[in-house]
Amino acid sequence: MKSALSFLVAARECEIGELEQLALSSELVSLVGRLIHALQKERGISNVYLGSQGKRFAEQRAVQALECDELALHVRRRFDELYSGPHSVRNGSRLFGRIAAVLHGLDELAGLRERIGAQLLPAVESTAAFVRLISGLLAVVFEAADSANDPQISRALVAMFNFMQGKEFAGQERALGAMVFVGGTVADCEQRWQQLIDMQERCFQVFADFADPTALEAWRQQQHAPKFAELQRLRHLGRSLRGGAPIEAQLGQAWYDGCTERIDAMRIVEDTLAANLRALCERRIEQTRAELRDQQAILSTLSRPTSPHAPAPIGPQLERSILVMLQEQSSRLQAMSDELDTVRAALNERKVIERAKGLLMAARRLSEDAAYKLLREAAMNQNRRLVDVAERIIEARDLLGPKS
Amino acid sequence: MKSALSFLVAARECEIGELEQLALSSELVSLVGRLIHALQKERGISNVYLGSQGKRFAEQRAVQALECDELALHVRRRFDELYSGPHSVRNGSRLFGRIAAVLHGLDELAGLRERIGAQLLPAVESTAAFVRLISGLLAVVFEAADSANDPQISRALVAMFNFMQGKEFAGQERALGAMVFVGGTVADCEQRWQQLIDMQERCFQVFADFADPTALEAWRQQQHAPKFAELQRLRHLGRSLRGGAPIEAQLGQAWYDGCTERIDAMRIVEDTLAANLRALCERRIEQTRAELRDQQAILSTLSRPTSPHAPAPIGPQLERSILVMLQEQSSRLQAMSDELDTVRAALNERKVIERAKGLLMAARRLSEDAAYKLLREAAMNQNRRLVDVAERIIEARDLLGPKS
Repeated sequence: MKSALSFLVAARECEIGELEQLALSSELVSLVGRLIHALQKERGISNVYLGSQGKRFAEQRAVQALECDELALHVRRRFDELYSGPHSVRNGSRLFGRIAAVLHGLDELAGLRERIGAQLLPAVESTAAFVRLISGLLAVVFEAADSANDPQISRALVAMFNFMQGKEFAGQERALGAMVFVGGTVADCEQRWQQLIDMQERCFQVFADFADPTALEAWRQQQHAPKFAELQRLRHLGRSLRGGAPIEAQLGQAWYDGCTERIDAMRIVEDTLAANLRALCERRIEQTRAELRDQQAILSTLSRPTSPHAPAPIGPQLERSILVMLQEQSSRLQAMSDELDTVRAALNERKVIERAKGLLMAARRLSEDAAYKLLREAAMNQNRRLVDVAERIIEARDLLGPKS
Repeated sequence: MKSALSFLVAARECEIGELEQLALSSELVSLVGRLIHALQKERGISNVYLGSQGKRFAEQRAVQALECDELALHVRRRFDELYSGPHSVRNGSRLFGRIAAVLHGLDELAGLRERIGAQLLPAVESTAAFVRLISGLLAVVFEAADSANDPQISRALVAMFNFMQGKEFAGQERALGAMVFVGGTVADCEQRWQQLIDMQERCFQVFADFADPTALEAWRQQQHAPKFAELQRLRHLGRSLRGGAPIEAQLGQAWYDGCTERIDAMRIVEDTLAANLRALCERRIEQTRAELRDQQAILSTLSRPTSPHAPAPIGPQLERSILVMLQEQSSRLQAMSDELDTVRAALNERKVIERAKGLLMAARRLSEDAAYKLLREAAMNQNRRLVDVAERIIEARDLLGPKS
């Protein structure tokens, strides 16, 4: 029969297993981040290409597609390595479901590019297709963050996810601006632009709440770069354009270049986050291994018989040290659980919005995009945060709707 | 390179793995429930024994100790089977930490019984020792419920946990009454008694919110049994006793028998819950296996080459069916996640109370019991629910305390 102490050892072994799993997830997240970055670039290039009736960025588009394909190959290989049996991955049923959706999106990329090359679809639709694919990749990152049960690593993953999500809104802003500055007409342009700015701010705020100091410092320095001020001016100008009017060509170029520079700089912060996350995982694994070694040493002292015929007696001192370990373990569990709850609250906001969106889709038979748009408009009209509107919708449904 | 479809299959395989794990946890929970029941009985018997200066229940005590030891042996064997490597159990680091604490408590049981037999400790302390051990066992059940990520099974486990917790408060009420009716003095007796009644009601309310209809019906019928009315009368009488006054001996016997009958009847509801949980797990596993077979059939159609030299082409119909599966998977994931959030909210209440207790213990250097007592008193004085007081304490600490 196993002793209390051997279960303490087992708990520690499981903790190491969970941390190793998190280290793998973290590597996956940073690889996915690189693919997202490349796809964001291809989205922006494609918009300029479509907006200029194929006159500009044809070559860049081909180069960028190659880069995306290469990174996608890496990501797919990593996905393949993840699965080694039904118990191999925590949260596997959700994670693999998300991965299946991403792979389907990647399979459709070639067809999408063909239609873009032949200028068979408007920039708005091309943007939407890239947004869907990237949002699927972000959902993979979200599952990785949501399944972490080490508070420190969970903090780092929440910071990372929110930074990536904020960067994606910045990418969507670049694409929107690219359409506007080449003279295209975009429905609800001013409102959508403002929403994208608000959502970036919200994401970067959560990132700032959870990020480590080095990444935060790198981010703060970027915010004070002089080029960012110029981008603010273009933002202001772009939002007031009504579309269809002739615009100086170099403004569009300046917008695209300025945004790209900003997003590429974000990529550096993301790399810092990824490097810190990797180091944190290694540190936590090393630390937990050291604690495990201590416990195993006590365990082997206990099981070593003092004479060949009698089991080792547990002296009062050893008994006390087991008791101390149990108490430490218990308060550690409690502290970890408390901290994890705090970190998870930041992830819940996304869940609330997704849920409200789902309710709207079902109740009004809307597409995902349309449901999201409706939510955003309600938030604008009521001058509330998106998540507050989402919460009200869920509450109303819980009060009014049938119990499911 | 694996396809989107093979990841859908992997997701389903993981889901089956997770469900099988839940089936094992559910069996463990129901076995732990039997041990808790036996320990509750031993606690009550020990109190009568101590209260009567060893004159009554000496024989029952010996019989009951044997029953407890036998069940503890079963539970320990099941604990031992759980661990087969660091990836074998979801949430292993927390679960095994809780198990270690329980094993330590079981190891101390023999010493506790000796002191009770020699009447070396007051009934209040004996009760407290049993309460600690049982609360450790309930924490194991809680971890099992908290790690479930199938909403239906999670509902059933939340109902089960709350029922077991409510039954334990009923057991504590029996012990308290047993002390009072043998003429013992109990500090804050009336207040503690009322708290135990309130907490039972709260737990059984959550149970009623999440239980399946058959268990709920079994429970409702018990509530209308005529003997329950008699127990209410004794409750009322007991709470007004000031202690130390001479009481008719048969009142104490009637109280003990009435409570025991009620608690034994609860055990039947618990058995119904356990049987339904087992059936639910089997049904969910069978259902998911059938879905997996469908997906595997499509996958093997795809990988069967039409000629030895060419891979199978994906026809438009098959392409559509993969798309439909992806969409189904995605909305299933969303629906499961939403429902799970609702169920988990019921578990959070416990977490909030535990956290507030921890804060009080640290801030005022209190023992766990003293911190809990302080919380209960504050709830009484402010005429609020325990969880509301706990929430205020956490909020105040978040506002006032240093950021950890």
